[in-house]
Amino acid sequence: MTQPDNSRPDAEGAELDTVGSVHELAVLERIFPLLPVASAALLGPGDDAAVIAAPDGRFVVTTDMMVHGPDFRFAWSTGHDLGWKAAASNLADVAAMGARPTALVVAIAATRDTPVALLEQIASGLRDACAELAPGCGVVGGDMSVSDTFTLAITAFGDLEGRAPVTRSGARPGDVIALCGDAGVAAAGLRLLFSDAVDADGKPDRARADRLRSEHPDTVGAQLAPCPPISSGVTAALAGATAMLDVSDGLALDARRIAKASGVNLNLHGDRLGSDPEAALRGGEDHALLATFSADAALPSGFRVIGDVTEGTGVTLDGQAIAGVLGWDPYEGWNGKTG
Amino acid sequence: MTQPDNSRPDAEGAELDTVGSVHELAVLERIFPLLPVASAALLGPGDDAAVIAAPDGRFVVTTDMMVHGPDFRFAWSTGHDLGWKAAASNLADVAAMGARPTALVVAIAATRDTPVALLEQIASGLRDACAELAPGCGVVGGDMSVSDTFTLAITAFGDLEGRAPVTRSGARPGDVIALCGDAGVAAAGLRLLFSDAVDADGKPDRARADRLRSEHPDTVGAQLAPCPPISSGVTAALAGATAMLDVSDGLALDARRIAKASGVNLNLHGDRLGSDPEAALRGGEDHALLATFSADAALPSGFRVIGDVTEGTGVTLDGQAIAGVLGWDPYEGWNGKTG
Repeated sequence: MTQPDNSRPDAEGAELDTVGSVHELAVLERIFPLLPVASAALLGPGDDAAVIAAPDGRFVVTTDMMVHGPDFRFAWSTGHDLGWKAAASNLADVAAMGARPTALVVAIAATRDTPVALLEQIASGLRDACAELAPGCGVVGGDMSVSDTFTLAITAFGDLEGRAPVTRSGARPGDVIALCGDAGVAAAGLRLLFSDAVDADGKPDRARADRLRSEHPDTVGAQLAPCPPISSGVTAALAGATAMLDVSDGLALDARRIAKASGVNLNLHGDRLGSDPEAALRGGEDHALLATFSADAALPSGFRVIGDVTEGTGVTLDGQAIAGVLGWDPYEGWNGKTG
Repeated sequence: MTQPDNSRPDAEGAELDTVGSVHELAVLERIFPLLPVASAALLGPGDDAAVIAAPDGRFVVTTDMMVHGPDFRFAWSTGHDLGWKAAASNLADVAAMGARPTALVVAIAATRDTPVALLEQIASGLRDACAELAPGCGVVGGDMSVSDTFTLAITAFGDLEGRAPVTRSGARPGDVIALCGDAGVAAAGLRLLFSDAVDADGKPDRARADRLRSEHPDTVGAQLAPCPPISSGVTAALAGATAMLDVSDGLALDARRIAKASGVNLNLHGDRLGSDPEAALRGGEDHALLATFSADAALPSGFRVIGDVTEGTGVTLDGQAIAGVLGWDPYEGWNGKTG
């Protein structure tokens, strides 16, 4: 993957510019050239709305808002991380429908003291994530506001290329359950950040986070700039996936969503969940693709069997009920005062 | 138009519920039934992404974020107002392309103490605005977060029905300039709110705002719950509009945008700008449709001629340059501390 870009612009004056000190137009002029271009854009930014090609006669759409505090902290995430993760998590939702991502729109509400250089980093993160995870996908429009709380809202689009969308409701008894991507790594990274990248008062600390990331680049990186298997959404659809979603809240909770929508039981196999099955079951934010396939389907590259679909309704681990099937949410007790 | 709904739910327990006290799923279960259904939705909420019909093979998209403080205040706006205005302003951007609005996605970041009843009001405002301004358009998906700053992000979609999009760049010398909708009314309403609906310390005051609105329902209502002429976007396109946008920052500034994109001069006629031409020139947020048509075009219903396109680049009033062509921005000095 492309490495996060922590560099700052050379010009000292430009480095000191903030959202509050520079006119909105000047901010946009610096950001626009950094944004990825969408090959599906028939009319891009600059009008009241953009026009996007939807050759399939339908389009897929998902939206997600990231809020400073509960969803990310600048003490831990660079601007590049934030742009990357915002793109990656939305692209994963498009991929989970079996669609090819085509375009994004991005709305940012920044605090007045936000350096324009930080917005440039966010734009670079969006660009690099699109280039790496969904080539051809780009930003077709956006909005820029001022807020006391830094907030980023992404809406992502995809093309089904003539296929039926892969929903959560098509799993049938006898199907196999397969996973593409990590399970539990991003949550382990977040756990590390919460334990080792805070100061004595429990506030997120940049220096400690930088040190932690250099010591555990893969684990912390999985949390701050995840690399979900976007292109595998289309290959899973082509291979006949009967149901699919991206794992954002942990295998146990997300498997239950498929189980509920399909009216079946998803039985996970403990010996297929890696060295720490409990972490795989509870840890969210990896945005792996969890899919079901009929037993005779040839699994596409990257997918591994982790269970089987049975009669019933719910999620089991080796046939046994899983206690407290909820994803781990370290932000549950998040307090705006501590950042 | 449908009147704002200020009623509260009957059940006392439900009235006391807040975003912080009720599980997210329970919040969504109360909001979903209130949201407008989109006739173009092939697959609605409940999956990783929605699927929307785009029979034209293209779709129009615009996004806009509304932040508590700079964009609205709950001391002045009801939840119904906020939902209504968020829908109306986004629908106007779709209409300004000559497209028919089809669907919205809505992301909300609410403070923990936000009453769930307020979210229900927002949903009702979205529903009533769609029903009134763009029948058939509905909400197809969304996201719900927690934030210290109440924030609402809307992304709106439209169908061009086989027509070319009406951009800002098609105005030609000899065209007439026509306007559909109000100019300056919403800004007058905001000016009233800033002068008469604040307490002695300048903080927005709910009781004063309620009184002011009952005294000046049309003017204050134009600011808090505007009614842009959404369906006129399609009729303008059918009538051959050469350029169009929705007036969000004042006639002078928005006319300059068409002038710049088209490489022409837009000459406004002072005697066509109503009783207060200065207010019409500077006042934003009415979301009227400003369009140009060839001189021999039959103007569609609702449009009135307010000027003519000439050689040059810029905006003039009766042939004279307009000093300080910038929209009026009362939030320029907005301070998060005063709400």
